[in-house]
Amino acid sequence: MNVETVILDGNRVATNMKEALKSRINQLSLKGITPCLATILVGDDPSSATYVKMKGNACKRLGIRSIRVELPAHTTTEELIAEIQKLNADPSVHGILLQHPVPPHMDERAAFEAIHMDKDVDGVTTQGFAQNAFGIAAFPSCTPAAILAIMDAYQIPIEGKHAVVIGRSPILGKPVSMMLLNRNATVTICHSKTPNVGDMVRLADIVVAAVGKPNFVQGDWIKPGAIVMDAGYNPGNIGDVDYEACRVKASAITPVPAGVGPVTIATLLKHTVDAAEKYVNAR
Amino acid sequence: MNVETVILDGNRVATNMKEALKSRINQLSLKGITPCLATILVGDDPSSATYVKMKGNACKRLGIRSIRVELPAHTTTEELIAEIQKLNADPSVHGILLQHPVPPHMDERAAFEAIHMDKDVDGVTTQGFAQNAFGIAAFPSCTPAAILAIMDAYQIPIEGKHAVVIGRSPILGKPVSMMLLNRNATVTICHSKTPNVGDMVRLADIVVAAVGKPNFVQGDWIKPGAIVMDAGYNPGNIGDVDYEACRVKASAITPVPAGVGPVTIATLLKHTVDAAEKYVNAR
Repeated sequence: MNVETVILDGNRVATNMKEALKSRINQLSLKGITPCLATILVGDDPSSATYVKMKGNACKRLGIRSIRVELPAHTTTEELIAEIQKLNADPSVHGILLQHPVPPHMDERAAFEAIHMDKDVDGVTTQGFAQNAFGIAAFPSCTPAAILAIMDAYQIPIEGKHAVVIGRSPILGKPVSMMLLNRNATVTICHSKTPNVGDMVRLADIVVAAVGKPNFVQGDWIKPGAIVMDAGYNPGNIGDVDYEACRVKASAITPVPAGVGPVTIATLLKHTVDAAEKYVNAR
Repeated sequence: MNVETVILDGNRVATNMKEALKSRINQLSLKGITPCLATILVGDDPSSATYVKMKGNACKRLGIRSIRVELPAHTTTEELIAEIQKLNADPSVHGILLQHPVPPHMDERAAFEAIHMDKDVDGVTTQGFAQNAFGIAAFPSCTPAAILAIMDAYQIPIEGKHAVVIGRSPILGKPVSMMLLNRNATVTICHSKTPNVGDMVRLADIVVAAVGKPNFVQGDWIKPGAIVMDAGYNPGNIGDVDYEACRVKASAITPVPAGVGPVTIATLLKHTVDAAEKYVNAR
């Protein structure tokens, strides 16, 4: 192909999204409301601590209040749920994010389910998943929403395209599949038990890599001109896509870092502002 | 191929399922409990009336009590929800089925959502969909569950196969896709905006037709040896699959009638007995 591959600049998309939030945050301020995100970190996983810190800093820079709840690794599920219920009941908190993963002795699903739908800005509840899957308003999971936000920012058509999603997790593969389906893509969902994942990806107009394995998607899997969205974020800032090999085949591709990651954070901020506005409007 | 196509006999599968329920119903009877399904029919659509009658008769033959609530076409959504709430509160009712579709002026989704999860034996709530999608116990939608029950009865392997589902409705295409995915199939979901549905179906080891268009799936779409599951039930007892043309290509196929239909009803009965047992165990 003569046409140069478009590098989908997540930093630019995120900046535009955050710029658009500023006037909304000002409007809320005039009504005496500061949007507030509560983050919960359980245990002392250093990557999780970094993610939570990044989210808190992103809030701060934009004038969103953030509350950090830090719980020791030996916290019980019941104690965690009690913390979540306190935040549910606190009218000054508009969004709640429980950093995944919690320590293995805990029931993460039960904790996610304890988050009130109105404050589930990270889109982790089963009810939120289902409402998104059925096209009923709810906060979608942030990473899937970020993938679509980048495609929309670059006016990449989705309807009628064949999207191949690699991964089937509750907060990424499954919801992004449903969202692409609702945007009228034909969607194929591959995973660790797919015997011929490369052959499937070769059919794709749009590839979404959400598998959590560094450099998993090979260059020779990419149909010339395909769109490659890399939701991977492996240790060492490495995506799920073999970037250089895929870039030369794709018509557009997200880098790692500076692709889906920053837009995921911007989406979380947007959902928090959305939640604060809904709270004000419901008063 | 020399091997003859297996005709997947839904009547036989349904009979076996119902036979297996008899001793469970007897056990419940010893505890003073008769499983009870409440069906709700709104308006006077003759096909809907027939379906509800078939379900009631199937209950009766097996010793499951059935209550028929019939509401006039001009019922409001609020009145319907009030009826559902009465049935939710009635401890003698174990399952509630609201016959789809309700008249167009009503909010069917709101009515479905009013059904208590414990009594959602038809698997129509968003919460039930999500729990099934995430592998958390809940009653799945009956037709998707029936499709899997037939495949299991005939020991048709699912793991590692490529399933192509045609249709994306909340009670059929979407849930059956999630169920096949959770059984480790690679799943492609096609629909009315898929430009090349025939080409997609040609890739399938397992085809699930859930599109609601008579004889939609063509014989030359079927890969030799594929499994063809026809969830269609169009006027005149016609499936979504061009049966004769597909049968000669497939290794196994469901007929219409006597394929998925009777197993869907048997699944509804099974869910009602499941619900009654759960009620007894929770007392």
